[in-house]
Amino acid sequence: MDLISGRTRVFGIVGDPIEQVRSPEMFTAEFRRRERDAVLVPIHVRPKDFDGCIPELLKVANLDGLIFTIPYKARALRLADVVGPNAQIVGAINALARTEGGRWKADIFDGRGCVEAFRRRGISFADRRIMLLGAGGAGSAIAVAIAFERPKSFQVYDLDADRAEALAAKVKQVDPRIEVAVDAPKVTGIDVLLNASPIGMLDDARLPFEVERLPRALVVFDAIVMPERTPLLSLAEACGCTTIRGLEMMRGQIDAMVDFFGYPRA
Amino acid sequence: MDLISGRTRVFGIVGDPIEQVRSPEMFTAEFRRRERDAVLVPIHVRPKDFDGCIPELLKVANLDGLIFTIPYKARALRLADVVGPNAQIVGAINALARTEGGRWKADIFDGRGCVEAFRRRGISFADRRIMLLGAGGAGSAIAVAIAFERPKSFQVYDLDADRAEALAAKVKQVDPRIEVAVDAPKVTGIDVLLNASPIGMLDDARLPFEVERLPRALVVFDAIVMPERTPLLSLAEACGCTTIRGLEMMRGQIDAMVDFFGYPRA
Repeated sequence: MDLISGRTRVFGIVGDPIEQVRSPEMFTAEFRRRERDAVLVPIHVRPKDFDGCIPELLKVANLDGLIFTIPYKARALRLADVVGPNAQIVGAINALARTEGGRWKADIFDGRGCVEAFRRRGISFADRRIMLLGAGGAGSAIAVAIAFERPKSFQVYDLDADRAEALAAKVKQVDPRIEVAVDAPKVTGIDVLLNASPIGMLDDARLPFEVERLPRALVVFDAIVMPERTPLLSLAEACGCTTIRGLEMMRGQIDAMVDFFGYPRA
Repeated sequence: MDLISGRTRVFGIVGDPIEQVRSPEMFTAEFRRRERDAVLVPIHVRPKDFDGCIPELLKVANLDGLIFTIPYKARALRLADVVGPNAQIVGAINALARTEGGRWKADIFDGRGCVEAFRRRGISFADRRIMLLGAGGAGSAIAVAIAFERPKSFQVYDLDADRAEALAAKVKQVDPRIEVAVDAPKVTGIDVLLNASPIGMLDDARLPFEVERLPRALVVFDAIVMPERTPLLSLAEACGCTTIRGLEMMRGQIDAMVDFFGYPRA
């Protein structure tokens, strides 16, 4: 297959800024792995241009899908004709795909990648007691995706208590049977600890909260991709916990999104 | 260099249909040859969407240039802030490039590729007597580009006599000193014979006009790319003429356009 030709189908990732995104190489590689003649290109759209530009871009006949990243995930919601259940609750999308009828379907996969990463490790969220740190964009998507998996309880912590409360309400909205609480970070009385805060990213050596030991039975997940082994995951490994990395979430998310773009796994 | 990343600069070719274009692989390969992190993608825009879509597309901040092909070369002219001399006379563009000041400059390179191909063979059009077959889009661009090279005379033939007359007038407009005529195809009293008609394309075994022998001194050019050796070029080779192929024009055009896109040859 040529690198690119007149027959190549085009996808894009829309954001501002755009230079830091990893989707172009990762999705293009996955398209090729599935033997599809498609590329995903960076599309740098400034906020003042978004509302005029994107609807016109969707008229390009060989453009089959868009990914939205910062700061457009909420703003892109209105572009969709059909919105998936995760995105409806979160109030944001990160993927828009052309359907066979020419309409546009959307959903958010940030959290579904986390669920997918756990599934690949053979770990279910059903009946588990969950503690989530961070109720921002990533945390919201993760919380909603997990809520669809019927956990027993869901506790969320955020420095911004209002944001934590709002997310707790969304989890309840997905499934009123889940025991939901806004609470301080804790490591006992829970089965799964998830970090979706930015603490521990890059050269930030901090733990997301003060803790010295983690129970060995805990499953610990960190949404951070860089570094692969965050301070929290290092501690968890030292304590013998099962750990799941941000990169595994990203991998699960890419696979689910390429399915959504109409190129199912062989 | 990755296939594509968030830092990759984006170019496009806009047309309808788009599947048959060769620019995506050829320009992307040339960008890489010049060690530039850029790709050129196919952009299929339908005629009803062109006027709304393209001005919005130009707002994409990492999109640095567009190529226009059938049926948009004339229609794209109005998108440019600055129009080069070839395009002004032809009344059409095939390349639009972002300038450092953020404005858009345009020109047409279809004919300049032909001039460039001749230059590479050490053949000048200056003071030569030219016969051109075909006064359509390709023929017009070739005629105007050659007119800037100060030939002695320029004769043009087209089945549509009005179209031939209009093109003759354009050549005269570039340089009133050129002896210009609309005439039947001929092979004597000329130095260079150029075919810009579609006759001989793909599996069309015809010559563009009835002829059995060509003078050995004639330089014969065919704008057709597929097949590389057209029936006209086969005859010319058999007669010992110097021949120049459509592929050489395409090569010259790509080089000139990548220069125009701001990536000069090393």
